[in-house]
Amino acid sequence: MICGLPGIGSVAWLAVNHLQKELHAQLFAEVFSPMFSPKVWLGEDGVVGLMKGEFHYWKNKPGGPDLLLFTANEQPYSPEGQYELAEVALDLAHKFGARKVITMGGMATDRLAEQPKVYVGATGPDLVKELEAFGAVKLAGGAITGTNGLIFGLAKPKNIPAICLLAETPGYLSLDANAAKAAVELSARMLSISVDLAALEKQAKENAEVVQKAKGLSRAFPREGKGSKGGDRELHYVS
Amino acid sequence: MICGLPGIGSVAWLAVNHLQKELHAQLFAEVFSPMFSPKVWLGEDGVVGLMKGEFHYWKNKPGGPDLLLFTANEQPYSPEGQYELAEVALDLAHKFGARKVITMGGMATDRLAEQPKVYVGATGPDLVKELEAFGAVKLAGGAITGTNGLIFGLAKPKNIPAICLLAETPGYLSLDANAAKAAVELSARMLSISVDLAALEKQAKENAEVVQKAKGLSRAFPREGKGSKGGDRELHYVS
Amino acid sequence: MICGLPGIGSVAWLAVNHLQKELHAQLFAEVFSPMFSPKVWLGEDGVVGLMKGEFHYWKNKPGGPDLLLFTANEQPYSPEGQYELAEVALDLAHKFGARKVITMGGMATDRLAEQPKVYVGATGPDLVKELEAFGAVKLAGGAITGTNGLIFGLAKPKNIPAICLLAETPGYLSLDANAAKAAVELSARMLSISVDLAALEKQAKENAEVVQKAKGLSRAFPREGKGSKGGDRELHYVS
Amino acid sequence: MICGLPGIGSVAWLAVNHLQKELHAQLFAEVFSPMFSPKVWLGEDGVVGLMKGEFHYWKNKPGGPDLLLFTANEQPYSPEGQYELAEVALDLAHKFGARKVITMGGMATDRLAEQPKVYVGATGPDLVKELEAFGAVKLAGGAITGTNGLIFGLAKPKNIPAICLLAETPGYLSLDANAAKAAVELSARMLSISVDLAALEKQAKENAEVVQKAKGLSRAFPREGKGSKGGDRELHYVS
Repeated sequence: MICGLPGIGSVAWLAVNHLQKELHAQLFAEVFSPMFSPKVWLGEDGVVGLMKGEFHYWKNKPGGPDLLLFTANEQPYSPEGQYELAEVALDLAHKFGARKVITMGGMATDRLAEQPKVYVGATGPDLVKELEAFGAVKLAGGAITGTNGLIFGLAKPKNIPAICLLAETPGYLSLDANAAKAAVELSARMLSISVDLAALEKQAKENAEVVQKAKGLSRAFPREGKGSKGGDRELHYVS
Repeated sequence: MICGLPGIGSVAWLAVNHLQKELHAQLFAEVFSPMFSPKVWLGEDGVVGLMKGEFHYWKNKPGGPDLLLFTANEQPYSPEGQYELAEVALDLAHKFGARKVITMGGMATDRLAEQPKVYVGATGPDLVKELEAFGAVKLAGGAITGTNGLIFGLAKPKNIPAICLLAETPGYLSLDANAAKAAVELSARMLSISVDLAALEKQAKENAEVVQKAKGLSRAFPREGKGSKGGDRELHYVS
Repeated sequence: MICGLPGIGSVAWLAVNHLQKELHAQLFAEVFSPMFSPKVWLGEDGVVGLMKGEFHYWKNKPGGPDLLLFTANEQPYSPEGQYELAEVALDLAHKFGARKVITMGGMATDRLAEQPKVYVGATGPDLVKELEAFGAVKLAGGAITGTNGLIFGLAKPKNIPAICLLAETPGYLSLDANAAKAAVELSARMLSISVDLAALEKQAKENAEVVQKAKGLSRAFPREGKGSKGGDRELHYVS
Repeated sequence: MICGLPGIGSVAWLAVNHLQKELHAQLFAEVFSPMFSPKVWLGEDGVVGLMKGEFHYWKNKPGGPDLLLFTANEQPYSPEGQYELAEVALDLAHKFGARKVITMGGMATDRLAEQPKVYVGATGPDLVKELEAFGAVKLAGGAITGTNGLIFGLAKPKNIPAICLLAETPGYLSLDANAAKAAVELSARMLSISVDLAALEKQAKENAEVVQKAKGLSRAFPREGKGSKGGDRELHYVS
């Protein structure tokens, strides 16, 4: 199972939505609950939609792992709701016999990386090492807040091996397709599946152009503040 | 079933109360709950009243639809309470075999319209089109917060066709009878029922006079701020 | 049953505690609950006490009504908790066959009255009139927040006749014994019981002296603000 | 049972962790719950951990009391959660037949004491006196907030004798090992067990050096504020 709820840079949400679209995964379950915000949204056609979680299923070729994809259009607004949704996701993972749970997220850094690092935490040291071999960087210390972190953490007492992948994101992007691409790439490598990344690459390129323009502006009209120094020591927020 | 809880301009509350009075609908159920504020109110006779929801029933002439009217003297104060009250209303709608749910609300715009537009969202594109034929304007995108929105949204997974009508209101009126009138008129047209609008018209006229006076004052003592530019692009808040 | 939880001027709390002490009522039930604040208090002897509600019982002479007294050392901190505690109190009132529920409170006014008025609201117009005959002033309109109000309001759908007595209090006194005295006096008159008021009178006199001193000070060092105009139209807060 | 959750100066948390390590107590139960914050933490090895409570068991020599140690890596974030966790701890104390419950905490004072006083409150006056004989100072009045206080207070209606030990701490230390040492020393004396205090002493010495440096700095660059006057009358916060 791969889980990704909205968070910093919407990294996880973008990543899981991309997988769902590219793999043509089938919607098979929805979660409506008072743990979500008391609001509804309307599509361009005037049709209403609820705040909800969605589970999609993807049948792999024989021999490869099938995938359960879980995402939602928001994080539950209350702390108890975040625990509850994490439990809902893990119950379903258990029911479908998921052998591994991957949750994703963004890690805010001060730099805009062309090749964002993907940090990894896991339910055991062997899993951390396995992911390091696939190019992830060990997350040595820190805290992960929100549902993406809880799904991963609550998997441990349930004895479901779980991994959390956090892609570097500069924090000021609301939709960081480049970070999402990095997280998807690493997941695909680990699962030995192939995923077309063109859509994320296109969006990432558009983002980069917007950022370049903004930088040009900010050079002309500089604000006071901390510069972009890059590197691991700049990490200050994990979600 | 027609639902309208207090919100912007009290549009929905005014509309449903007007229908209840004009149609002489009968009170048949009340909802008391800790989801409402921890307070009571007193009438002019010193008799206490609780914060509550009320259901009224109206028996139509043979051939026309009977009506269930739902309103409350406030929105539940907590998000979970808003979900809970929406469920209570829909359970009752289901129990009475309601064929359609209409919720109402106000949509804050920067203009005070003489003929307020009524925007429409629905549980399906056919319903949107049906309402457009009755003069409503499609609500293409946006979010609706609060119980009025949730009743409408939660009707969808329960397979109850539902419509949300949002009448334009300038936002600074606490009781916008003119917007309520627009919502009632459109509902009546759709349901082929006739409703006397005199009471709402009278109140609307009084409002208009108060606003004229206030405008006179503000011309004499102008405040800084955004002018009333009108038009669809001014929409900034939906409730 | 007479109920009084802490509120403005601690009027109700003082009144019920006074009744309990003067009548030598017996403690027979305590309510501990997470609806109270997460704290404990310590007596002068270092012994711990919990936030709680207490029920005392007083056996009247034959022919007169027995009394159930309910108070607590604080109001539940959450709105749901206030509803819950009100239900607990009314359940017990029902179990013991209480024929009438009297709740008390303070009503903040801008004047410090020597003879504070006692306002009354009730579950029916007859009760209001009955209390007016005993010297209470009808509370025509307004809202009563908190548990004292909810006990009174929730008695109505349970068909328990209930009265709410709100004694005038200037708002700046944390323990207004004079207002409490007025509430106790009126209750005693209504119930045809005799209660020694000496302790409340003594405290009220001490309060009055403190206020006189403070007024002396404030005359010497005047602050800007609204003067004490007195009269009904000054009512601005009810609890 | 000895309980200590994080609070002012982390006194209780440090004390119980010290006991657990020095006595080589065995972990035998963990509490995961939505009452904790919605976050997880990562160890240096990248392995995830949940917010949780932990129970350790220590088997004493024959004749001496065995110990149950309870701590958690945070206080539940909601008031209800604090009550719930206190109940969980006391249920377990009851199940294991604990004869006495000791909770710990810090009491903020304005002085940095070399020999911090340990204040005591208890479920009965005899226990207070017993602890005074061991060198504790009676806590005459005041309130104790949070789970440490609730475990102690809720023990009373359950008829479990309980003691709360609050060690003086200056409030500006996040980890006051000296205060923790004082609490551990007194507990050990009362329980007739011997505990090596070297680790706490070492940390306390390091703290003292940091404080000395800071004082040197603040002498060079004095801030306005209240001086450290010491003594009981300076007590202003208990937790």
